[in-house]
Amino acid sequence: MIEFMIDLQGGGKAPLYEKIYGYIRDEIAEGRIRRGEKLPSTRLLAENLAVSRSTVEMAYEQLLAEGYISAEPCRGFFVCDITGLYRLRQSVSHPQTEAAHGRERVKVDFSPNAVDTRAFPFHILRKINRTVLSDDTEELLEAGDRQGEYALRNVIARYLHQARGVNCRAADLILGAGNEYLQLLLTQILGAGRTVLMENPGYPQAYRTFCNAGYRVKTFCAGGKGAVCEEAQRAGVDLVYVMPSHQFPMGTVMPLNQRIKLLEWAAADEGRFLIEDDHDSEFRYRGRPIPSLQSIDCHEKVIYLGTFSKSIAPSLRISYMVLPPVLLERYQRVCGFYSVTVPRVQQETLCMFIGDGYFERHLNKMRGVYRDKRDFLLRELKKRDWAGHIGGESAGLHILVEVRTAMGEKELCRRAEERGVRISGLSEYMLGSEICGGERGPRLLFGYGKPDEAEMGQGLFILDCILKEEQK
Amino acid sequence: MIEFMIDLQGGGKAPLYEKIYGYIRDEIAEGRIRRGEKLPSTRLLAENLAVSRSTVEMAYEQLLAEGYISAEPCRGFFVCDITGLYRLRQSVSHPQTEAAHGRERVKVDFSPNAVDTRAFPFHILRKINRTVLSDDTEELLEAGDRQGEYALRNVIARYLHQARGVNCRAADLILGAGNEYLQLLLTQILGAGRTVLMENPGYPQAYRTFCNAGYRVKTFCAGGKGAVCEEAQRAGVDLVYVMPSHQFPMGTVMPLNQRIKLLEWAAADEGRFLIEDDHDSEFRYRGRPIPSLQSIDCHEKVIYLGTFSKSIAPSLRISYMVLPPVLLERYQRVCGFYSVTVPRVQQETLCMFIGDGYFERHLNKMRGVYRDKRDFLLRELKKRDWAGHIGGESAGLHILVEVRTAMGEKELCRRAEERGVRISGLSEYMLGSEICGGERGPRLLFGYGKPDEAEMGQGLFILDCILKEEQK
Repeated sequence: MIEFMIDLQGGGKAPLYEKIYGYIRDEIAEGRIRRGEKLPSTRLLAENLAVSRSTVEMAYEQLLAEGYISAEPCRGFFVCDITGLYRLRQSVSHPQTEAAHGRERVKVDFSPNAVDTRAFPFHILRKINRTVLSDDTEELLEAGDRQGEYALRNVIARYLHQARGVNCRAADLILGAGNEYLQLLLTQILGAGRTVLMENPGYPQAYRTFCNAGYRVKTFCAGGKGAVCEEAQRAGVDLVYVMPSHQFPMGTVMPLNQRIKLLEWAAADEGRFLIEDDHDSEFRYRGRPIPSLQSIDCHEKVIYLGTFSKSIAPSLRISYMVLPPVLLERYQRVCGFYSVTVPRVQQETLCMFIGDGYFERHLNKMRGVYRDKRDFLLRELKKRDWAGHIGGESAGLHILVEVRTAMGEKELCRRAEERGVRISGLSEYMLGSEICGGERGPRLLFGYGKPDEAEMGQGLFILDCILKEEQK
Repeated sequence: MIEFMIDLQGGGKAPLYEKIYGYIRDEIAEGRIRRGEKLPSTRLLAENLAVSRSTVEMAYEQLLAEGYISAEPCRGFFVCDITGLYRLRQSVSHPQTEAAHGRERVKVDFSPNAVDTRAFPFHILRKINRTVLSDDTEELLEAGDRQGEYALRNVIARYLHQARGVNCRAADLILGAGNEYLQLLLTQILGAGRTVLMENPGYPQAYRTFCNAGYRVKTFCAGGKGAVCEEAQRAGVDLVYVMPSHQFPMGTVMPLNQRIKLLEWAAADEGRFLIEDDHDSEFRYRGRPIPSLQSIDCHEKVIYLGTFSKSIAPSLRISYMVLPPVLLERYQRVCGFYSVTVPRVQQETLCMFIGDGYFERHLNKMRGVYRDKRDFLLRELKKRDWAGHIGGESAGLHILVEVRTAMGEKELCRRAEERGVRISGLSEYMLGSEICGGERGPRLLFGYGKPDEAEMGQGLFILDCILKEEQK
């Protein structure tokens, strides 16, 4: 019989049973009691330690639950075989408290996906949040509708119909935490072994999501001579991913006759679908918004993706997807068990923000803010000798500028970054290894979502300096 | 040359250019002007309509942008070929405003995944939310860290180390909108073609996520004689998905010697990994929490998954995953481009909730609340003749009860649902087509997270009635 020497005074104010448990656990773990050995009975150990029997019983129960000892009816408690454990415990170390990574100092941020945060109506958000979190909100804690709350889907469906001509009901909408999540979900709905055609350059994130899902991805040059439906026919794909109202990053609009042909291509085979990514069509500065591809689709072939990342904020993480009936049915069958990825408090907040008219007001205001910033940027660029052809200026939150210099695009961006100007070149948006557009000078994406006029001026001045140095 | 008869008085208060655009668009769409026809010059049309030339120019620009017309230098504007469009536009209908689906009346909800919302500290949440949304919060709108905000990951890492012995740094943690999302992400990190072993019954969601990813899933009976590592060896898998501290739905704890052998099995091949789903280990009512499998892993083989769905609320949608170094590196390479799926406001709120000690207090309080409810339920069940063996009562938010009746499990659940009692049978958690445990009477999962004592009493009374009727 083993004798235990347990120090019940030491070890701080932990409960007695924990001290007994901890002592015996360590004795077993460190191999000082061997497997198969019998432990003293609870009565005996309780007497020896001058504690109550139930204290010892609790310690033994914990050892039993974790598997250090086993109980054999009418015989008592025996040490289990845990060979290998002592060796394992040695490597356990405490978590380091690392310092947060210092983000590099960016003075001017021309990122094409950033938004203007200065004009955000925080007071409205605070007000709505207070309302949402007020008294009777227990329901908010419970798991909600898997597609997203019905009321929110309903206001989004109405908005999409009015603003983008999208033909949908709340029931056709699925909410998700960002476009990438919805694309991930979409690959599960569409199933394995698909082939998809994408415009190049385009969204590398979408490209990589398809690649990760094992899809074969074919690309063709955006803005080239070829029509997209002919490319789809030639490439033998069954999915086409397009941004017809405002191609990212080129800023082009797909002409109506190409849209019609693309819809006809999709309608010709029941396995074919079009994925319309309508990422920033809220912001168009010349004339009316270009209607969505989905709005003229009568064959139920368009999967429509949209987001509040640009119209409200990237950190909001709310996107939506409109599925045609056949895919909605497949979603319910294959993916219907996934919980919604957007928190309910956030959903209620957005629902009120749209439903009470704040969203429309915010959009109208931001359209003005962005138009002014765009106009300023265009005026400033036109003063520069180095600024060549300018594209994509009618919509979205960035413009594409050809730079007249002998410097390489990557080199130019790197030098800008060194001086605190974050700007990306078109090559960052090339999908896979293919390069479209042939040998040309640098083409830069000037996102004007984030910087104000002073910052844009500063950024352009720094680019002036870099390009002047190069000429010498 | 076409002559246009445009009614500029009608059509409400739309801008003039929109009326001109809309008229010409409809003429083209409905085939009244044919492709190739030349439009009047902007000067001529402006004179005819007695509007300014820039108004006509804006209308033409919109038609150009959408692809209804094309411009030929020095020749003018021509109608494009849009054959097929008129046919397409016909089917466009307005979105119906459906009535919200009336949810069936549930009086007593024994769902195993629901939580008690009555005791939730809403006033704290409101207070923290106010602080988070106060003045200098522009940064909150911008896209944040892709793994989740560093400060939040840091407090979670510290909590995991203290509460679950998990050996991790903030850098090893990835936040996501729910366990299912993280499992989805995990399949992308681990790559295609994997074979995974799961205990049966288990989490059908995890099972289906693996199936959707194209994984071969093998199952074995939870609580059976076979040790999990032997099953893994026999099944020839490279992944094992386990809930060692509290198997769902059986409520069993994996003994220490099995854990060690499982870790050794994983260490024997570099492609092998263990997925530890530690879903509700916060709530253990007898003794100390069972340490995590990850805490005794020195070969960096355990992928640790946890969630705030049970410890705070399912609707919060915040889960976390601790990756071993080799998979973290793969995550950064393959999935590093995915934005975090948790909104930043939500992250900041949770960070304060944990960091300021509210989470710990909430957990301690809820542990008491759930213990009382569990004790009540156990006492009440012991009064019933029909309640046979009771399992899984030491931890979690549900207990498993064998029911002595000739009625089938599905029939019993269906009759309960008819009378407003939502309760699930064990068979709902069987993975795939395999049935474990052989021929037995109904086994019900009594989740006590949601109902209060009165509701549980009512639910048991209704079950009494159903089972008594059957006996007659």
